[in-house]
Amino acid sequence: MKKILVLHGPNLNLLGSRENDIYGELTLEEINKRIKKFAGGKGFIVEIHQSNHEGDLVTKIQEAKEKFNAIVINPAAYTHTSIAIRDALAAVNIPIVEVHLSNIYRREEFRQKSLTAPIATGVISGFGANSYLLGLQAVLEKISKK
Amino acid sequence: MKKILVLHGPNLNLLGSRENDIYGELTLEEINKRIKKFAGGKGFIVEIHQSNHEGDLVTKIQEAKEKFNAIVINPAAYTHTSIAIRDALAAVNIPIVEVHLSNIYRREEFRQKSLTAPIATGVISGFGANSYLLGLQAVLEKISKK
Amino acid sequence: MKKILVLHGPNLNLLGSRENDIYGELTLEEINKRIKKFAGGKGFIVEIHQSNHEGDLVTKIQEAKEKFNAIVINPAAYTHTSIAIRDALAAVNIPIVEVHLSNIYRREEFRQKSLTAPIATGVISGFGANSYLLGLQAVLEKISKK
Amino acid sequence: MKKILVLHGPNLNLLGSRENDIYGELTLEEINKRIKKFAGGKGFIVEIHQSNHEGDLVTKIQEAKEKFNAIVINPAAYTHTSIAIRDALAAVNIPIVEVHLSNIYRREEFRQKSLTAPIATGVISGFGANSYLLGLQAVLEKISKK
Amino acid sequence: MKKILVLHGPNLNLLGSRENDIYGELTLEEINKRIKKFAGGKGFIVEIHQSNHEGDLVTKIQEAKEKFNAIVINPAAYTHTSIAIRDALAAVNIPIVEVHLSNIYRREEFRQKSLTAPIATGVISGFGANSYLLGLQAVLEKISKK
Amino acid sequence: MKKILVLHGPNLNLLGSRENDIYGELTLEEINKRIKKFAGGKGFIVEIHQSNHEGDLVTKIQEAKEKFNAIVINPAAYTHTSIAIRDALAAVNIPIVEVHLSNIYRREEFRQKSLTAPIATGVISGFGANSYLLGLQAVLEKISKK
Amino acid sequence: MKKILVLHGPNLNLLGSRENDIYGELTLEEINKRIKKFAGGKGFIVEIHQSNHEGDLVTKIQEAKEKFNAIVINPAAYTHTSIAIRDALAAVNIPIVEVHLSNIYRREEFRQKSLTAPIATGVISGFGANSYLLGLQAVLEKISKK
Amino acid sequence: MKKILVLHGPNLNLLGSRENDIYGELTLEEINKRIKKFAGGKGFIVEIHQSNHEGDLVTKIQEAKEKFNAIVINPAAYTHTSIAIRDALAAVNIPIVEVHLSNIYRREEFRQKSLTAPIATGVISGFGANSYLLGLQAVLEKISKK
Amino acid sequence: MKKILVLHGPNLNLLGSRENDIYGELTLEEINKRIKKFAGGKGFIVEIHQSNHEGDLVTKIQEAKEKFNAIVINPAAYTHTSIAIRDALAAVNIPIVEVHLSNIYRREEFRQKSLTAPIATGVISGFGANSYLLGLQAVLEKISKK
Amino acid sequence: MKKILVLHGPNLNLLGSRENDIYGELTLEEINKRIKKFAGGKGFIVEIHQSNHEGDLVTKIQEAKEKFNAIVINPAAYTHTSIAIRDALAAVNIPIVEVHLSNIYRREEFRQKSLTAPIATGVISGFGANSYLLGLQAVLEKISKK
Amino acid sequence: MKKILVLHGPNLNLLGSRENDIYGELTLEEINKRIKKFAGGKGFIVEIHQSNHEGDLVTKIQEAKEKFNAIVINPAAYTHTSIAIRDALAAVNIPIVEVHLSNIYRREEFRQKSLTAPIATGVISGFGANSYLLGLQAVLEKISKK
Amino acid sequence: MKKILVLHGPNLNLLGSRENDIYGELTLEEINKRIKKFAGGKGFIVEIHQSNHEGDLVTKIQEAKEKFNAIVINPAAYTHTSIAIRDALAAVNIPIVEVHLSNIYRREEFRQKSLTAPIATGVISGFGANSYLLGLQAVLEKISKK
Repeated sequence: MKKILVLHGPNLNLLGSRENDIYGELTLEEINKRIKKFAGGKGFIVEIHQSNHEGDLVTKIQEAKEKFNAIVINPAAYTHTSIAIRDALAAVNIPIVEVHLSNIYRREEFRQKSLTAPIATGVISGFGANSYLLGLQAVLEKISKK
Repeated sequence: MKKILVLHGPNLNLLGSRENDIYGELTLEEINKRIKKFAGGKGFIVEIHQSNHEGDLVTKIQEAKEKFNAIVINPAAYTHTSIAIRDALAAVNIPIVEVHLSNIYRREEFRQKSLTAPIATGVISGFGANSYLLGLQAVLEKISKK
Repeated sequence: MKKILVLHGPNLNLLGSRENDIYGELTLEEINKRIKKFAGGKGFIVEIHQSNHEGDLVTKIQEAKEKFNAIVINPAAYTHTSIAIRDALAAVNIPIVEVHLSNIYRREEFRQKSLTAPIATGVISGFGANSYLLGLQAVLEKISKK
Repeated sequence: MKKILVLHGPNLNLLGSRENDIYGELTLEEINKRIKKFAGGKGFIVEIHQSNHEGDLVTKIQEAKEKFNAIVINPAAYTHTSIAIRDALAAVNIPIVEVHLSNIYRREEFRQKSLTAPIATGVISGFGANSYLLGLQAVLEKISKK
Repeated sequence: MKKILVLHGPNLNLLGSRENDIYGELTLEEINKRIKKFAGGKGFIVEIHQSNHEGDLVTKIQEAKEKFNAIVINPAAYTHTSIAIRDALAAVNIPIVEVHLSNIYRREEFRQKSLTAPIATGVISGFGANSYLLGLQAVLEKISKK
Repeated sequence: MKKILVLHGPNLNLLGSRENDIYGELTLEEINKRIKKFAGGKGFIVEIHQSNHEGDLVTKIQEAKEKFNAIVINPAAYTHTSIAIRDALAAVNIPIVEVHLSNIYRREEFRQKSLTAPIATGVISGFGANSYLLGLQAVLEKISKK
Repeated sequence: MKKILVLHGPNLNLLGSRENDIYGELTLEEINKRIKKFAGGKGFIVEIHQSNHEGDLVTKIQEAKEKFNAIVINPAAYTHTSIAIRDALAAVNIPIVEVHLSNIYRREEFRQKSLTAPIATGVISGFGANSYLLGLQAVLEKISKK
Repeated sequence: MKKILVLHGPNLNLLGSRENDIYGELTLEEINKRIKKFAGGKGFIVEIHQSNHEGDLVTKIQEAKEKFNAIVINPAAYTHTSIAIRDALAAVNIPIVEVHLSNIYRREEFRQKSLTAPIATGVISGFGANSYLLGLQAVLEKISKK
Repeated sequence: MKKILVLHGPNLNLLGSRENDIYGELTLEEINKRIKKFAGGKGFIVEIHQSNHEGDLVTKIQEAKEKFNAIVINPAAYTHTSIAIRDALAAVNIPIVEVHLSNIYRREEFRQKSLTAPIATGVISGFGANSYLLGLQAVLEKISKK
Repeated sequence: MKKILVLHGPNLNLLGSRENDIYGELTLEEINKRIKKFAGGKGFIVEIHQSNHEGDLVTKIQEAKEKFNAIVINPAAYTHTSIAIRDALAAVNIPIVEVHLSNIYRREEFRQKSLTAPIATGVISGFGANSYLLGLQAVLEKISKK
Repeated sequence: MKKILVLHGPNLNLLGSRENDIYGELTLEEINKRIKKFAGGKGFIVEIHQSNHEGDLVTKIQEAKEKFNAIVINPAAYTHTSIAIRDALAAVNIPIVEVHLSNIYRREEFRQKSLTAPIATGVISGFGANSYLLGLQAVLEKISKK
Repeated sequence: MKKILVLHGPNLNLLGSRENDIYGELTLEEINKRIKKFAGGKGFIVEIHQSNHEGDLVTKIQEAKEKFNAIVINPAAYTHTSIAIRDALAAVNIPIVEVHLSNIYRREEFRQKSLTAPIATGVISGFGANSYLLGLQAVLEKISKK
């Protein structure tokens, strides 16, 4: 049975109570439920972590190498500033999908640059909580083909 | 019954015979078949066009306003150079998903800038032909919610 | 009797139904009526074309050399991206006025650069449909002086 | 009866004797006569000032708020360097037209940037003395509509 | 017998009547005669097209793949703005020579960047109509060696 | 009774022993005493934290939403690199004052950019330990007015 | 008894009637009253000037050298454009505090650069009229320590 | 008898009391004495003005056209910010020498750009008060040759 | 006896299993053994830490001040993004050598900038595991000379 | 009889033994033979020099003025760094063709800029040794027309 | 008796026969005669060298340290490209004056940057051959004061 | 027996007498003695050259191909300006170590860019004369492994 790691970056624990016009009204807990339900329906195992610490995310990604078939990650603010996360993603040899709740092309100049996207298989942004489900579906098809 | 317009930009008619390591091995015809099959399965109508002309794409987008519920577009090379397509997309008030076969973040510097993405609801890139199907699914959920 | 060519660039055929806060509420047909009425009042002949195709605009400009005394052009999106239109304008030796409905200085960064303006006699922007009439008046006085 | 303030920026007092190939052969006095004649013909009152001092122009603009219906301004060199004039223009709530004798798009790089234009209703440049008359006509139509 | 496609970009149909100090005094017809005479002398077949439309040039290049041994192209204004033509050139696997009538290094800043040159085998610029003949000779030697 | 959170960023725990010509001679302990004394005098409660971890600061800011009326923060090095702290600050809806011991305008180029300042109510920099007291006073007046 | 010079830059004479959402609702007269009351309470003498002229502000700063113990200055628009004011501030050897009503980090790109701030002791921005009082308090403590 | 105008820009009235390590220890009065003595020795008339106002310098330059054979100007801070002074210098058709007390190449980045130097005959910088005398000698030889 | 702190930045714990063509085939454990053997041979004490957390590295550096004679650090990804680590290094007054396994000049543009190198005594990059031993030797000679 | 100077810049003496995938497999001696044979066939005299010294190339170019009808030069690395060679080329009034073995548009960013090309009649790059023969042919036709 | 070294950079040996509108009509020999005559009149010894080689100029400057009291140098093209000459000038502890025949501020963008000027005492440019005499006079007064 | 070429770039012949705070107090002769002693101790042959001429260094590098096992080079000023030296280094297929006496990251902006470093195996900078010995040791270990 396939195992997929879902990682939420900094401040995503605030979802639902934070700038709802940008990030939507679902809480992180509700998004996680949807992810688990989706995993149940598709028949794969999902593990989910959120952290505000760059170093924690680096460590989680490193550990994924042995234990998971793929990663779906929303690096949030660290998308634009973390070479350490980029390097960790480059070190694991499994498919990675980068997702964003908002369409980052519509936002501040400094959110236009993604340090992590060139390492990912693909990027999905702008569909709110649905970005995660689309990302899971994309990565599932990717690892099924292999 | 929902109607979705799928637009393919310049050179996509060459798919399958062109730089397969970047764009995949499916021909445009095969991709279109998958799109139609997907539409059949989900119960919506799809109309598909490809053009090498910026002006044709502008005109097709303009006409979508009255006739379609949403657009899924791969503007290809025009993603990075066409303000005219951007303006056309901004003029129609229906959901738009921008899709790319390759992960544009992995490519030349000049492909990093998207003139059309800030106008789209969301962007999906890097999943080959599957980018279109993910895009259709994303936009379907978008227009169902409305 | 003087003959003036009026050219409308891409998406201007959508006027009246598109982002009215930026472009005003008149349709292109209504603007064209005003232009013709103005021509009638001033005693000159006007010919009007709109195209979404860069190449069409290039060809129209090329043909103007023999047939018209001046050009009033709103290159719209192509203002900022078309060296081909610039080169065509540079090749005809008649006065050219560039007009814009909106004040382009108030808009996105990429609309600040005009490839065509350095080739024009002058530029008028920000007065809605009236920009065309002011442009016609400006170019009329220019060609009367010659 | 409508009142319009016309402001001439630095060095415009030298017109007619200065780089005629760029600025034309009319003196400022002759241009002012044309402006007054135009005002007479159209039935509005015009007041005209020229200053080489940035601070004087700021003060004149500030005073316009209570006393004039609109401003037509050629900020000349200050177009490109004066945030103080920009702030003054932003503080008065009346229509403003920025005019230039020469087509500033044809000139030095540092004249391409206008600090004042984003505050103006519209911009007219490149028609010599006629730029002022076109500017007055544009602003008259603007304030008549209100 | 070898077949070579010669493509002329936008505004080259105006040659001889347009900015002769930059582009020379020969008309496009005269240049084409020289090209044909040169082809006759060297014993290869040449087909020549000119278009003001980016999309037409894209389509012509795409079709060359099956029908020609090489392309000599003067993309003119599209040299600096067209990723679509670049992508088309990258998709055909035959030798390509880019030619320019004028020495583009001597011209405006925006003509210094060539989007198409990195895809070409080589570039020849600055020799007027002779650039085409040198380009044909260069590409002939290239395809003879293969 | 009002509650204010004071946050010290990385390396501020070294104060008094580190580059005294830039940061002054007071230790962090001494600054904290002054802050508490000031709070005592003005009748508000203050809680103070220092961390070298970006993630800790993010978490502290997140928790402030429910428990504090305002934040006074010296993000130190993270001022210039942390979008995560910026996003956390944007997510809490209470007044924020950013303070700096040194005048950051006098320092290295990379310290000129502040990612957090656009989110703050205001910024105070250059007054050594006194910057904190001025910041507390500023924010107190802000929350009293509400 | 300490003497402090307070300088208001261009357009600050319009306060209360100009873009109140940015600059607050107090008039300059009301702000000056608060400044004088604050001076009365703290026991120092204050002299206040406003000018729209860069040259006047330069001269006022030059004269401060002999007559004042410190300067609190809001250079307004000249913050971003005046090297002359910077040079004048650098020539007087007394403490200087730069203040701004609005948080300049939240505003246009061109307001992000301060030519004068690197010369000041410190900078306070974003607290409306209160910025002046905080600036006076900061500078008082500075000159008391000496 | 030749007449030369010597103009001192902003803050030069402070010489001798201001940053002596950069500008030298002579007061402006002492420099002016040397200039006059030099003029006496060489047999030409000199008129000297200093102003902190950009507009005053513009006006003085304008008036020079009829009354002087040449200008020696130290625009000081306005060297780097004043297009108005540049335009005034461009409008008078007499030789101009730009002088600087300090070697501006050794100073801040923003002092590296000179708006006025491209209009001058030549530039002399870095020789303290002697820069003026060298400038006078240079311009004398220039106007003698004519 | 001299004590040297060796710090390994993020992702270095993956060595030997990660992009071996760039970083070499030794594991971190093997490198540490070599470092310890080298220390044994040269007669100094070495303490070694690795962390994925920016904050941990900051804290380790801070503590070095009292306990070590020098630091050899490979900040890895944080070389290019961490002002916090730079500030910590600047706060300890002991010799610092920055080392890199790969030659960073050969890699991505964003790895060309080092925030930490200007604080170090010197930099050694490109010699794989040997970079550490060369760094230790360099710093040993440095601290012996003192 | 026409005389043409052929100049080879630095490192071209290594041809055939150096990065053959970029520069081809012919040695400089073999290229020179082809050049001489070509000259023999066309009936002109050729003189050939290679130097690794910028100054030598400058001197050779200077001497060409009196002795040669044209120059064909491959400035190699100095193409991108030598203003001295540019100035020497600008000083001789004979036709110059710049040639490159490789297509410089395909190479490193710093090879995209040519300091010498704007001085040349034309540029030919990308055809290996054949670039020289094409350059000779181009320049021969140029000097025959004169 | 004072000894001054005068150095002429590359291509200055061509003076009088090269672009006379920029560099004047005097040959280098004639300029050298004027320099020697000036030295005779002022009572100092002058030694003059010209070289097209960057390395020669470096060596000449190095030798000046022991043998000369000052250097007057026109580095010509190397002004803008040679860090080696800059480093040599920085290594000799005698006054240096940089001179230019033309006003470099009026010329190409790449001639605006001077690598050597920040090392010089002062710079004189734009006075033709007279720049050398002014430079000698300036440096004489400099070394007399010492 | 291994042979290593040591190359010193321009101005290094001045060591010991030039800016000792940056480059240290040893003369080049003394450094060369240390290098030779080190070679003696390690049992390899060393040949040492210094030149102020870019072309000489290019030629020396070219000759190394046949005669040496490795190069240790301090290109000094040419590090930042010489593509010719870069190309020569790229043409020899032996290990290269670039060394610098000073830590170039601490110096002027223009010394931050190294044209030669991407060609080297590794770079060592900041350890004074010791940089050479560390470089020799590094390259020795490199060629021993082969």
